[in-house]
Amino acid sequence: MQLDMERIKRQMVERRRDFHRHPESGWAEFRTTAKIAEVLYDLGYNIRFGGEIIREEDVMGRDIDAGAEKIRAIKQGALEDIVAAIGPYTGLCAELDTGRPGPVTAIRVDIDCVDTTEAEGEDHFPFKEGFASVNPGWMHACGHDGHMAVGLALAELLKAEEELCGKVLFVFQPAEEGVRGGYAMARSGILEGVHYFLAFHLGLNNPTGTVFGGMNGFLCTTKIDADYRGVGAHAGGEPNKGKNALLAASSAALNLHAIAPHSDGVTRVNVGVLNAGEGRNVVAQKAHLKIETRGATDALSSYVYDRAMSVLRGAAQMYDVDLSITKQGEANSANSSPDLASSVASMATLVRGVGKVSQFGRMSGSDDACWMMKYVQDRGGKAAYIGIGADTAAGHHSSRFDFDESAMPIALEVLRRTVKFINR
Amino acid sequence: MQLDMERIKRQMVERRRDFHRHPESGWAEFRTTAKIAEVLYDLGYNIRFGGEIIREEDVMGRDIDAGAEKIRAIKQGALEDIVAAIGPYTGLCAELDTGRPGPVTAIRVDIDCVDTTEAEGEDHFPFKEGFASVNPGWMHACGHDGHMAVGLALAELLKAEEELCGKVLFVFQPAEEGVRGGYAMARSGILEGVHYFLAFHLGLNNPTGTVFGGMNGFLCTTKIDADYRGVGAHAGGEPNKGKNALLAASSAALNLHAIAPHSDGVTRVNVGVLNAGEGRNVVAQKAHLKIETRGATDALSSYVYDRAMSVLRGAAQMYDVDLSITKQGEANSANSSPDLASSVASMATLVRGVGKVSQFGRMSGSDDACWMMKYVQDRGGKAAYIGIGADTAAGHHSSRFDFDESAMPIALEVLRRTVKFINR
Amino acid sequence: MQLDMERIKRQMVERRRDFHRHPESGWAEFRTTAKIAEVLYDLGYNIRFGGEIIREEDVMGRDIDAGAEKIRAIKQGALEDIVAAIGPYTGLCAELDTGRPGPVTAIRVDIDCVDTTEAEGEDHFPFKEGFASVNPGWMHACGHDGHMAVGLALAELLKAEEELCGKVLFVFQPAEEGVRGGYAMARSGILEGVHYFLAFHLGLNNPTGTVFGGMNGFLCTTKIDADYRGVGAHAGGEPNKGKNALLAASSAALNLHAIAPHSDGVTRVNVGVLNAGEGRNVVAQKAHLKIETRGATDALSSYVYDRAMSVLRGAAQMYDVDLSITKQGEANSANSSPDLASSVASMATLVRGVGKVSQFGRMSGSDDACWMMKYVQDRGGKAAYIGIGADTAAGHHSSRFDFDESAMPIALEVLRRTVKFINR
Amino acid sequence: MQLDMERIKRQMVERRRDFHRHPESGWAEFRTTAKIAEVLYDLGYNIRFGGEIIREEDVMGRDIDAGAEKIRAIKQGALEDIVAAIGPYTGLCAELDTGRPGPVTAIRVDIDCVDTTEAEGEDHFPFKEGFASVNPGWMHACGHDGHMAVGLALAELLKAEEELCGKVLFVFQPAEEGVRGGYAMARSGILEGVHYFLAFHLGLNNPTGTVFGGMNGFLCTTKIDADYRGVGAHAGGEPNKGKNALLAASSAALNLHAIAPHSDGVTRVNVGVLNAGEGRNVVAQKAHLKIETRGATDALSSYVYDRAMSVLRGAAQMYDVDLSITKQGEANSANSSPDLASSVASMATLVRGVGKVSQFGRMSGSDDACWMMKYVQDRGGKAAYIGIGADTAAGHHSSRFDFDESAMPIALEVLRRTVKFINR
Repeated sequence: MQLDMERIKRQMVERRRDFHRHPESGWAEFRTTAKIAEVLYDLGYNIRFGGEIIREEDVMGRDIDAGAEKIRAIKQGALEDIVAAIGPYTGLCAELDTGRPGPVTAIRVDIDCVDTTEAEGEDHFPFKEGFASVNPGWMHACGHDGHMAVGLALAELLKAEEELCGKVLFVFQPAEEGVRGGYAMARSGILEGVHYFLAFHLGLNNPTGTVFGGMNGFLCTTKIDADYRGVGAHAGGEPNKGKNALLAASSAALNLHAIAPHSDGVTRVNVGVLNAGEGRNVVAQKAHLKIETRGATDALSSYVYDRAMSVLRGAAQMYDVDLSITKQGEANSANSSPDLASSVASMATLVRGVGKVSQFGRMSGSDDACWMMKYVQDRGGKAAYIGIGADTAAGHHSSRFDFDESAMPIALEVLRRTVKFINR
Repeated sequence: MQLDMERIKRQMVERRRDFHRHPESGWAEFRTTAKIAEVLYDLGYNIRFGGEIIREEDVMGRDIDAGAEKIRAIKQGALEDIVAAIGPYTGLCAELDTGRPGPVTAIRVDIDCVDTTEAEGEDHFPFKEGFASVNPGWMHACGHDGHMAVGLALAELLKAEEELCGKVLFVFQPAEEGVRGGYAMARSGILEGVHYFLAFHLGLNNPTGTVFGGMNGFLCTTKIDADYRGVGAHAGGEPNKGKNALLAASSAALNLHAIAPHSDGVTRVNVGVLNAGEGRNVVAQKAHLKIETRGATDALSSYVYDRAMSVLRGAAQMYDVDLSITKQGEANSANSSPDLASSVASMATLVRGVGKVSQFGRMSGSDDACWMMKYVQDRGGKAAYIGIGADTAAGHHSSRFDFDESAMPIALEVLRRTVKFINR
Repeated sequence: MQLDMERIKRQMVERRRDFHRHPESGWAEFRTTAKIAEVLYDLGYNIRFGGEIIREEDVMGRDIDAGAEKIRAIKQGALEDIVAAIGPYTGLCAELDTGRPGPVTAIRVDIDCVDTTEAEGEDHFPFKEGFASVNPGWMHACGHDGHMAVGLALAELLKAEEELCGKVLFVFQPAEEGVRGGYAMARSGILEGVHYFLAFHLGLNNPTGTVFGGMNGFLCTTKIDADYRGVGAHAGGEPNKGKNALLAASSAALNLHAIAPHSDGVTRVNVGVLNAGEGRNVVAQKAHLKIETRGATDALSSYVYDRAMSVLRGAAQMYDVDLSITKQGEANSANSSPDLASSVASMATLVRGVGKVSQFGRMSGSDDACWMMKYVQDRGGKAAYIGIGADTAAGHHSSRFDFDESAMPIALEVLRRTVKFINR
Repeated sequence: MQLDMERIKRQMVERRRDFHRHPESGWAEFRTTAKIAEVLYDLGYNIRFGGEIIREEDVMGRDIDAGAEKIRAIKQGALEDIVAAIGPYTGLCAELDTGRPGPVTAIRVDIDCVDTTEAEGEDHFPFKEGFASVNPGWMHACGHDGHMAVGLALAELLKAEEELCGKVLFVFQPAEEGVRGGYAMARSGILEGVHYFLAFHLGLNNPTGTVFGGMNGFLCTTKIDADYRGVGAHAGGEPNKGKNALLAASSAALNLHAIAPHSDGVTRVNVGVLNAGEGRNVVAQKAHLKIETRGATDALSSYVYDRAMSVLRGAAQMYDVDLSITKQGEANSANSSPDLASSVASMATLVRGVGKVSQFGRMSGSDDACWMMKYVQDRGGKAAYIGIGADTAAGHHSSRFDFDESAMPIALEVLRRTVKFINR
């Protein structure tokens, strides 16, 4: 079967812009999931939705009204039947079985957006071109819109490959932002038997034309919310009746930032948000902290996390207030398998538009694809997190973020060649 | 002229419930001011609105959109012409000149509501009777609705008194909650030449039938907002680029609460609200603190306030962040003049329904009527803050607050007899 | 028997100056105890030493080398036999049994000095007259030297009173400073059956000639030492190996001072001393805090104490360090019995040199005589803490403290008349 | 001239043990300086003492009683005349001028001890062999005793080298511990015109037989003392009169440890010592902090130092207390010149007993020889900090530290060959 590559490239841009226009925050990607499913059903893929495979106990940082989000999704063009079929959890897993014996290759595509309000103005390309977000407070400011467009085009190309062997599994993962959904996807069992795992990311502060066979250096991170609940009281009249959640939180914040650094490598703690108290003249009854701990390795991450727990609990004890801690997200560290990264790099050198290729690249952040990389590697498989350079208008997560769409065909071709090489 | 007291009492209840249904927060009392003006115009009073007498530099804690609030007021039944006449600042001053020589007596009535959402349920009388607040987040939870009903009835009764001498001045004061409007009213000049000043309050944790000729023990208080502004930065990637407003605020909060007590009497500090930071993985750029300092005397109040300033500034210096401090409210301390309190108490003993009368009562909070009391006393006049007991369903400022309406005729009669006694 | 009052007065001065020259800190008063015992043996009193009556579990804040102090005491003139008889605990109880039926009256005399170094210079009377302290770091800077001189003179006078009935018990109490020894004396059982208890103090910021029948308003107080023990580590090389006792202590100090005030009355917390760490480049392994909590009543004192315990424990939890807390002293609150205070006041009016007499005076500090007052009052007895004014050269506990010795005969006469009046 | 190498080796051991027995803390090394001078005078070196070349404004962390220390030095065997000649500052500079044209090579030898008390017991070699420290609290626990023994032997060998060209300068530097004396030596001008600079250290956690041509990775560090001075007050009676230095210091300590890490590399802060307050019931008037900041580069070091200054000043402002900051020591970072390190390594391979040689080694701490390295390098010269492995009984600075004396001949020979190679 001969495919019209121009049509496919045009469709990538159209789909990317449609996704961009309708961004959905983690665990609320009902329209997104439905749109992806629509395409994949048409291509003949076998689909299992997040709601079918994700276990409740593996879900982190989900704070949405699923019913309301489904209604919104339908209003924004999702097919009602598909939305109903998704179940409580977004994302999906789609399988292509070639019928021929061969390895199983999984490709991770993240689908959620960032919680930021998109910039306006003629100098912001999506705004100028009319595909800026219609969902206030939500924006595809990390490139996942492009990932999906590439992923769907890849699904079509691979379906049409006549000499492909084994199976290909597309993992459209919800809630990557805040590293919330990767763990549940890794634990869902869908990756059992997978020999090769590929994730990819556009941008990463590298220009269009750059390709890294495998990124390394992911930081382990844990996102926790801490809630102190004390007792309110009139601050002038009966201050002694109060149990001060605001002071517990303030004390926790200071001492969290004073956690000692570690001689073995980078560690980080941040209290990014502290909201406490209701009224000026009331002893604050409640305080809420959004906290992030990081470490260059699992051991460093555990070190910081454990110290943070001690501090949080100590502050509760100090003010005799209750403390509840909720894990809102977590990512481990993982490294790309050298030989798989090497194969990707070799394939990339063959792709038109690619100028600079390296086997390895260095990541400065976290990605919960690492859970899946580790799952596959722990069972003897190989994994690579491919870096596809793309010029960007502003940094990732910025309200002015936009990426060079001409990086999409590069990503598509690198992935297609790699899968063909593996599943030959 | 013979007045129908039954009609007047009925009207007090109706007006109180109308005000209760349409509560307006401090500086937004356009409907309230207009309704009061409507009645007083009809009675023939000479009116000057807040907008005519209040100077901008004396205004504290005003954070409203006057245009929007005026539109709302009109929608909620205020006469358009009157709303237009009010000008930027709510409240009014209404004068009755008997034409006969005699003293000038001023009566303070506070008109704003509390920023709380009224309770629902059949056990909450205003809800059950259908006069609960229609303005979400606003509620007459302190009894000012009753004060206004009493004040307007008093205005009618005094107008009809044929033997009254001198002048009577009604001061309908905006923004008593948070002690924001009293200072501006005291500084407006309207109290110049006043010989006697009366304020009154319903409830105060005393049962219906109790009357105190004059309350004492008001705490001086200052309400300040402190805003720290630092520099945001990615907490994982470039923590050193940030200047952490959250830590500055946390450090300020702890050290504010550690201000040493004073051997001369009661002092209080409270950081009631701390809101800092925008995102979990961002070094917090902004922090907002709502603070209250109190002292039993002006000197004690200054002591706490000065120390608080040092702490706030020190925390800014620590984290190299900017600090802006805004005074949101202030009340001084004042005591009721013993002889005027004694006169009130004497008159109260003659009032039907009054069981227990004392010359003095003890206040545990603050009221910015003190600015006016002090203004009058400093110029040789007398002032009394009358306590009118009223059974209440819940504490002042509670969402379940409601008071016994049968205390209104008592308040009316105590005030009428007192003014008649003074201006005879 | 006729006593030579001039000799007795002269002896009071001599003894006071001898005690002043040889001050001994709490629990180290071996010379002092021996000197007192020597006089009382000569007078025929029946003596029981601290070592015989004090139970180990009641002793607080004792940190001395008894053997070394006894050697010093002997070197400074104490009789070796008596020092040997004292046992481990200083202080004594001496009984005069008149043989005639009548009430039992106890008189408390405190015997320890203050831990301060006495001033030098011709303008400091004890220095000029050659009776300044010979024990560096120790000084009778509170007047206990005078108390003892008065007590011994009183013992002689009462012994000689021919019409005295019942019994008189002198309680020479160790370690009043830091409120350490009173509790042990109260618990020793010696006050069982006591009908009247008298304590007295010279000075108290009242001039010579003033007498208060009974002081009130003693603050409850608890003195605690808190020790954090963490783990040291090289701060540059392996900061993560450390558990930082210095930061635990700093956090505790701040949050202790932030304990909310109480609406029922005065409370106080003070971290007076914080010593932490050994080397600049070492994570501090140890921290030591000297803390004091106070409250105007037992309930207020408990409130502050309990909150302080929470803070101290919370700080230990924060930094995963060990905490040990030792009670170093404690005083309760007590009030003088009104009728006994009244009797003392009546007697005082008859004393030469007394100008101003009041039934009650107000204390601003703490005294562990309160344990004994309460012990006696709880069993139906009466207690009074008599205030004997005395001009002073500087405030109590100051290195320049000195009191007007002419207040001693006043104290003697007030006490003599009071005991005669009671035990008649 | 033929030298008896056995005698020289024996003498190294004797001298090392003599220095070990008489350790002297930084700036107090009068006996040490005198002993060194005695040897060098005999060898015919030209000597300038620290007192002749060090400028007062360059001296850091000097807190000794020079008069008393000189008396002690003489009692411990220093020649009186030499001690007198030393002047106020210890250390010396000794020149060997070969008279033949050639380069100037400087060799740094540090001479002070560590402030720790030496261990006792038969398992501690210096104790068992009778050369443990006779100066309580002082101990050669870093190997400087060995450095001096090697340095003096080298001076003798070089003096005897007949083919040596140019000049050799021995810099016996005081107060290396706490990085206090190196800056003054570098600024003294003695290194002007120096072409090659060599420092060396025994031990460094490497076994005997290991040699590193040049160590790198020195951390910049600044040692500062911060003193807060507030106002004392009776904590119970008049807490408001106090200005609390203890709380200022506690707040500073917490916030110093909360200084954000830096993305460019390692930074460190430590408050190693905090001593505040005098009495339990007194608002603390004074607080003393010993602080250390570090950074992997000058820029990182400045970053931490500047932030630390802000925190210290902010805490003073918070509590309205005075702050004085004294720099007690400072070291910069420097790297060994590659070609000189390479030459040292080449020479080392020729030395008997040397097993493992590397061009570069990694330092984990700080050394103020870096000031001199940078001085020479900035003027076009070369510098190397040679690492001479030596088995040790316990870590550097430990009270059980002892090193394998057989490393001394290795150091001697590496240095001799290197100087011969350079100055040929």
